[in-house]
Amino acid sequence: QNSELFTLTYGALVSQLLKDYENVDDVNKQLERMGYNIGIRLIEDFLARTSSGRCYDFRDTADKIQMGFRLFLGVTPSITNWSPAGDEFSLHFETNPLTEFVELPDHCLNLKYANVLTGVIRGACEMVQMEVTSWFVQDQLKGDNVTELRIKFIKRLEDAIPAGED
Amino acid sequence: QNSELFTLTYGALVSQLLKDYENVDDVNKQLERMGYNIGIRLIEDFLARTSSGRCYDFRDTADKIQMGFRLFLGVTPSITNWSPAGDEFSLHFETNPLTEFVELPDHCLNLKYANVLTGVIRGACEMVQMEVTSWFVQDQLKGDNVTELRIKFIKRLEDAIPAGED
Repeated sequence: QNSELFTLTYGALVSQLLKDYENVDDVNKQLERMGYNIGIRLIEDFLARTSSGRCYDFRDTADKIQMGFRLFLGVTPSITNWSPAGDEFSLHFETNPLTEFVELPDHCLNLKYANVLTGVIRGACEMVQMEVTSWFVQDQLKGDNVTELRIKFIKRLEDAIPAGED
Repeated sequence: QNSELFTLTYGALVSQLLKDYENVDDVNKQLERMGYNIGIRLIEDFLARTSSGRCYDFRDTADKIQMGFRLFLGVTPSITNWSPAGDEFSLHFETNPLTEFVELPDHCLNLKYANVLTGVIRGACEMVQMEVTSWFVQDQLKGDNVTELRIKFIKRLEDAIPAGED
């Protein structure tokens, strides 16, 4: 419902970071870091809203990440390009609400504008004991036909035990 | 639908500004300025979605600002405390999606956390030839029972004539 306000607010955040950091790579890193901090909190809301249990396998994880995009961004990317080992897949976005109305100026061609999303996924997955990494391989902002986000399984994490308990 | 993602993203923006500026007053100003830039773009979407025409009077404006909050933030503040001259009113928020989960640390007590909203209103109204100003008079983040945003009519603006036309 409020997607345009969100889109414009995210744009203000990216602009601010471009002013703050000299290097576009640093902006990309900072967006990922911010996304991570958002993801570790957003997962709670995701679990509460979807009553999701533990993932059976990485295909199940893919479905849940897709559901997260529907829930929080109102878009349903398609799941595609599985690696033979089943440890990597892509999400294809026909549209990306974050990048609506956005045009990259020439000096920002290395900017990963929507990089917050890679951080959100990393943070959210980490909270359910799964280490993943993700990166954009195609981007409509850079003239590609679709936006493609690649997600790779790294490893299962040990359940963390709160300090002072056994 | 995506309000939690928006709330957390806005939080990341405010945190970034607190890092960037030494002075909390400067953060308040910067949030207002960002809001202004958002407002001058958001108004188009508002007009398109609501098929609104020109406001008859400031009471009509109040209704439309209220509708904007419903549309973009999913909350409906009540319109109250009209000044006798009819040039000022308040919006009372029972809840403010922007400040959900937020607690102000002690060194930020002067922070106007949701100040982006005053800028959004100023920018949006300016685009429909109305100068207004607004400010928070109560804030649940600071222990008040409601959050109260006061909005004041300043003047009607001349229709801007694009350069090169008569």
